[in-house]
Amino acid sequence: MPVNRRIVLAERPQGMPTPETFRLEEGPVPTAGPDQVLLRTVWLSLDPYMRGRMSAAKSYAQPVEIGDVMVGGTVCEVVQSNAEGFAPGDLVLAQTGWQDYAAAGAKAVQKLDPGAFPPSLALGTLGMPGLTAYVGLLDIGEPRNGETVVVSAAAGAVGSVVGQIARIRGCRAVGIAGGKDKCDYVTGTLGFDACVDYKAPDFMQRLKEACPSGIDVYFDNVGGDVADACMALLNNFARVPVCGRIANYNDTELPPGPNRVPQLMGLVLTRRLKVQGFIVSDRWHRMADFHHDMGAWLRDGRIKYREDVVEGLEKAPEAFIGLLQGRNFGKLLVRVGPDRA
Amino acid sequence: MPVNRRIVLAERPQGMPTPETFRLEEGPVPTAGPDQVLLRTVWLSLDPYMRGRMSAAKSYAQPVEIGDVMVGGTVCEVVQSNAEGFAPGDLVLAQTGWQDYAAAGAKAVQKLDPGAFPPSLALGTLGMPGLTAYVGLLDIGEPRNGETVVVSAAAGAVGSVVGQIARIRGCRAVGIAGGKDKCDYVTGTLGFDACVDYKAPDFMQRLKEACPSGIDVYFDNVGGDVADACMALLNNFARVPVCGRIANYNDTELPPGPNRVPQLMGLVLTRRLKVQGFIVSDRWHRMADFHHDMGAWLRDGRIKYREDVVEGLEKAPEAFIGLLQGRNFGKLLVRVGPDRA
Repeated sequence: MPVNRRIVLAERPQGMPTPETFRLEEGPVPTAGPDQVLLRTVWLSLDPYMRGRMSAAKSYAQPVEIGDVMVGGTVCEVVQSNAEGFAPGDLVLAQTGWQDYAAAGAKAVQKLDPGAFPPSLALGTLGMPGLTAYVGLLDIGEPRNGETVVVSAAAGAVGSVVGQIARIRGCRAVGIAGGKDKCDYVTGTLGFDACVDYKAPDFMQRLKEACPSGIDVYFDNVGGDVADACMALLNNFARVPVCGRIANYNDTELPPGPNRVPQLMGLVLTRRLKVQGFIVSDRWHRMADFHHDMGAWLRDGRIKYREDVVEGLEKAPEAFIGLLQGRNFGKLLVRVGPDRA
Repeated sequence: MPVNRRIVLAERPQGMPTPETFRLEEGPVPTAGPDQVLLRTVWLSLDPYMRGRMSAAKSYAQPVEIGDVMVGGTVCEVVQSNAEGFAPGDLVLAQTGWQDYAAAGAKAVQKLDPGAFPPSLALGTLGMPGLTAYVGLLDIGEPRNGETVVVSAAAGAVGSVVGQIARIRGCRAVGIAGGKDKCDYVTGTLGFDACVDYKAPDFMQRLKEACPSGIDVYFDNVGGDVADACMALLNNFARVPVCGRIANYNDTELPPGPNRVPQLMGLVLTRRLKVQGFIVSDRWHRMADFHHDMGAWLRDGRIKYREDVVEGLEKAPEAFIGLLQGRNFGKLLVRVGPDRA
C-alpha cells in the first residue's frame, strides 16, 4: 500500500536553510473529493522564490506555516479522477508542492499535451520561469534593436531565457554567471554575445569590456554586488526589471555602510532610470502570447534549455540549498516519480 | 550708459553654496547679432536643479564653468531686435541666466502673450516647474481615481502643482512641507487633503495617519529621510517619480551605514514598485497638452499658485542658498527689472 512522503517546513531558517529546516514525513495517500483529482508527482520544480515563503515576513504571498508541506510547482500524473475532463494517466501542471501525492481541484490543475514538448518544460522554459523572463524582459525591460541587455544568473532557468529572447529581439546579450563552465555554456550553447564570471577578481573590468556601449537593460536576478556593478554601467533611460535578489535572500542583517541609497537614487534621477519590480503571478494574462511565441521559438531551435535533474524527493532539501548557493546548472528539477506508474 | 551685471560661478561649492560661491561682475551690454534679439531681464527663476550645474560631476547637462554666468530661465523684454517676429517691448521666455542683459538667437526664445497670464507664470506654474509636475505625475505616476498621492516640497513650485493635479484626477493628495505656515497653505489654499510637517518629531506617525490607505504615488522632490519614510508606506504596484533629491544635493559624502540598498530593492521587488527618474527637458513634447490643460485649470481657478519674489539681481545668491535650505515659500523668483523699461 503506497504512502505519501511529504517534505514539510520544520523551522524557519535564520539565514541560509540547512537540512534541519526541513523534515520528511510519511502519511496516508489522500483521496480525491468531488470535482477533484488524485495526483502522483512526477516532477517537482525548485525555484528561488521558495526561500521567501519560508520566512514569516510579509511579502507578496502567504508564508508556508511550520509543519506544512513546502509549496512548489509540479508535473503530476492523474491517478484517480472525480473531475470532468481528467482521466487516469493524464499529465497535468499543478501546485502540489514537495510530496508524492495530493488531491487537487480541477480548476487548480492544467492538462498537458504530452506529445507537444517534454512535460518537464512546463516547469521551466515553457512555464513560470519562462514567462518570468518573457514579461520581465519584454514588458518591463522594453529592449530595442541594437541595445545591450545584461542578465545575471544567466545559466539559470530565467536568465537563460532572458538572454536568448534579447538576441531574438536584435540586442547584444551579455550574461553574468558563476564559473567558466556556466559562462562557456551561456555563450557556446545559448548564443549570448558574452558572459562574465562574477567570481573573477577583475569582474568589473570584464563586465565593462563586455558592454562597450554601456547597459540599456539590466535584468536583475541576484541583487548584491553584481547588481551594483551593473547599475554603474547603465545608460541614460536604461530599464531595470527587478526579478530576484538571491544574494540577499539569506541575509540576517543589512550590510555595513555607507548607506548607498542616495547614490542609487541619484543615478535613477540623473540617468532617468526605470527600476521596476515584478512578480510573474501578476502577469498570467500574458500566458497565451508567451506560449505562442515560446512554442514557436522552441520548435525552431531558437531557444535552448538545460535541466539539472536531482533524483528522488528526499534530495529536494539539499538541492534547494544548492540552488541558493548557485550550485545548480540549468533549471533545477526533482524527479519524484516515473512519467507512468 | 547701462552696464550688464552678471552673477558668475566663482568657485565650485563643497557642500552647501556660500556667498563666496558667486561673484557679481559688471560689463558692457552685449549687442544683438544677425537673427538675434537683445534682451533685458525682468524675471529670473531660481530652481534646485541649478545646484547640479555648479558641480563638475557628470550629469544630464553640462556644468557651468568657473567664471561663467549662472544659468537660469528668465522672462525678458526685447530691447532691440534683428530677428523677424520680435519687436522692442515684446516679452519673451528665455534662458539667459543670472544677468541684466543678453543677446539670444530667435530660436532660443519664445514670445509671451502678456494679456493671457502674468508673465512670471511662464517660469512657474505655466512653465518648466509646472510641466515637471504634469509629466512626472501623469506620465510616470499614472494616478488613478481614488488613489493616494504624496508629494514632498508640497509648497514649492513643483509640489504645489502635483497635489492640485492629483486632486483634479480624483486622488487623495497629501503634501509634505516644512513648518506650520506652509502646511496650512497647502491644505487651506491649495486644497490638498492633508499636509504633514517633516520637522515634527512624530512625522512618521502623522504621515501614516494622513495616508490611511497607504501611498500609491510618491512624487519625490527631496530624497533623504522624507523619501525613506514614504517608501515604507508604499502600496503594492505604487509608482515613484523621482524628480529631485534636494536633501542630497549638498552632500559631500555618503551617509553612514548600514547600506539600505538591499532593503530598498527588496521593497521594489516584493511590492512591485516602479521607481523612475525623469528630467523635464526630455519631455518638451508634452508642452502643448500641458499648456492646454494648465491654461484651462488656471482660468477656472482650479490651480492656485504662490510666488516668493526677491527684489534685485544682487539678491539671487542669498535667495538660492535659501531655496536649498527650504526657506522659500512658493515659486522663487528674482525681480531683476521692471516689466517695461
